[in-house]
Amino acid sequence: MIETVHSFEKPLADCTVAIAGLGLMGGSLGLALRGQVQRVIGVARRAETVQQALAIGAIDAGYATLAQGAAEADILVLATPVSVILAQIGELGRLAAQGVLRRGVVLTDMGSTKGAICDAMAALPDSVQPVGGHPMCGKESSGLDVAEADLYRGAPFVLCPLPRTTPQTVALIKSLAAAVGACPLELDPARHDHLAAAISHVPYLAALATFLAASDVGESDPLAWRLAASGFRSTTRLAGSDGQMMADILLSNRAAVLEQLDRLQAHLAHLAALLTAPDAAHLGQLLSVTRAARSQFLDQYGG
Amino acid sequence: MIETVHSFEKPLADCTVAIAGLGLMGGSLGLALRGQVQRVIGVARRAETVQQALAIGAIDAGYATLAQGAAEADILVLATPVSVILAQIGELGRLAAQGVLRRGVVLTDMGSTKGAICDAMAALPDSVQPVGGHPMCGKESSGLDVAEADLYRGAPFVLCPLPRTTPQTVALIKSLAAAVGACPLELDPARHDHLAAAISHVPYLAALATFLAASDVGESDPLAWRLAASGFRSTTRLAGSDGQMMADILLSNRAAVLEQLDRLQAHLAHLAALLTAPDAAHLGQLLSVTRAARSQFLDQYGG
Repeated sequence: MIETVHSFEKPLADCTVAIAGLGLMGGSLGLALRGQVQRVIGVARRAETVQQALAIGAIDAGYATLAQGAAEADILVLATPVSVILAQIGELGRLAAQGVLRRGVVLTDMGSTKGAICDAMAALPDSVQPVGGHPMCGKESSGLDVAEADLYRGAPFVLCPLPRTTPQTVALIKSLAAAVGACPLELDPARHDHLAAAISHVPYLAALATFLAASDVGESDPLAWRLAASGFRSTTRLAGSDGQMMADILLSNRAAVLEQLDRLQAHLAHLAALLTAPDAAHLGQLLSVTRAARSQFLDQYGG
Repeated sequence: MIETVHSFEKPLADCTVAIAGLGLMGGSLGLALRGQVQRVIGVARRAETVQQALAIGAIDAGYATLAQGAAEADILVLATPVSVILAQIGELGRLAAQGVLRRGVVLTDMGSTKGAICDAMAALPDSVQPVGGHPMCGKESSGLDVAEADLYRGAPFVLCPLPRTTPQTVALIKSLAAAVGACPLELDPARHDHLAAAISHVPYLAALATFLAASDVGESDPLAWRLAASGFRSTTRLAGSDGQMMADILLSNRAAVLEQLDRLQAHLAHLAALLTAPDAAHLGQLLSVTRAARSQFLDQYGG
């Protein structure tokens, strides 16, 4: 006889949601979910973080260890950096085997890459119902201090079901995404990672390299920084993202990032060629067409 | 006997300022200057542009030709694209030789590169007092519709005096920059162009190439655009600049731009190498150090 899996039968409003990691993403999720679910439990290593999350109303209760928080969860959300998520999935496998977790607990995450995480999720015992997740929003500043209930409003919230993920689990996490104002979107992990490399990971590297190249000049002539206007700040804004977090993301999406970096470098080489043997007509046309395309695509897809 | 050069003796408040080009930069200058100078004269080819500039209060009077506007000017500001500025300097040389211009008229410009423009200015007759100019501000949107009196407030306003430029001319244009709320800053043209390549022209190319590389993916999978969040918009914002204007700028600063593009490509190649043979420690450190440096420099130099 197959034991009844209780979580899937519960509506979101009756679920206890545990959030591991109370930074910008986890803290904002707690703020947005509280009152819409049975309870929000937070997990953070530092006692001060748990205290702060309680104080700002992001959680109903908090614990220092994943085992404690996960034990009470109907839905468990890993809102930690990608390398920590991968380690926590391993730990959850052991906790499930030890019977610490509720049977049928739904596990999702908010990591910026999905291939490695979904592969790790696939190795979990059957008593865990996993679905990869990635809400496409954020800020450069990180931490609970900048968490806000509206962070997810209007953002695409990618869900990556595994072959074993039940339709009820997908529906439950879609309702969680909708509850925080996000737009759920099912996507294959490889497709997610390929697209994320193009619109997030490599733009980050472009911002970083643009800043580093300007630094080469700014080191010998600091006036460069004084002349840097809003365009420079905007182009290099993503270079203000947390370095360890981004290293994690890039390394867990290496193949897609390297492939997209090749495309970026090819376009830069082409632009350099149009300047080296000056081709004003072709250059002007390329620049104008690109401007129009950017305007068209970004208008069409809102934001 | 040397004829008295009248303009230099006048304070800014007594000067007639002619602005050739009534787009974002010229229109904003007119809006900011009116009431602080004797008269503001606008020059634009299209009669509707002159009418609109009169209607929004950016100019006191307008003409269709440079010759008409320049004839009445104590100070003449070329606020046209770089290639047009270069052509207009040639035309002003002929007008000066024909005695159309006031003797001692002060000529400046708002072009984004200074080497080629200052070289052209150096060939003008002695009856013209030239000084290169570049206020470091702007928007991606262009045209008189988006002009605003506060555009220059707080912006560095680079002045490039030529060897022949008198101290009185520099002082007069500094007072013009200050009158619109900008911070005048004397700079050698080559140094300006070197710095502008690093903090403006190559960041533009990085934004453009980032968008083009994302387009390669978006063409086969348009979902990319739907997932593009604020970080992508920010990184590629400069790619929304006017294409012909940017082609002009890049071509008139080719050497410095190509040198800086090499630096950008070297940093991207280094980042690719850290991902190809994964070096998590080195990568994380580089990303974190760069984030801290960006924060330090941009904080230190305000904005």
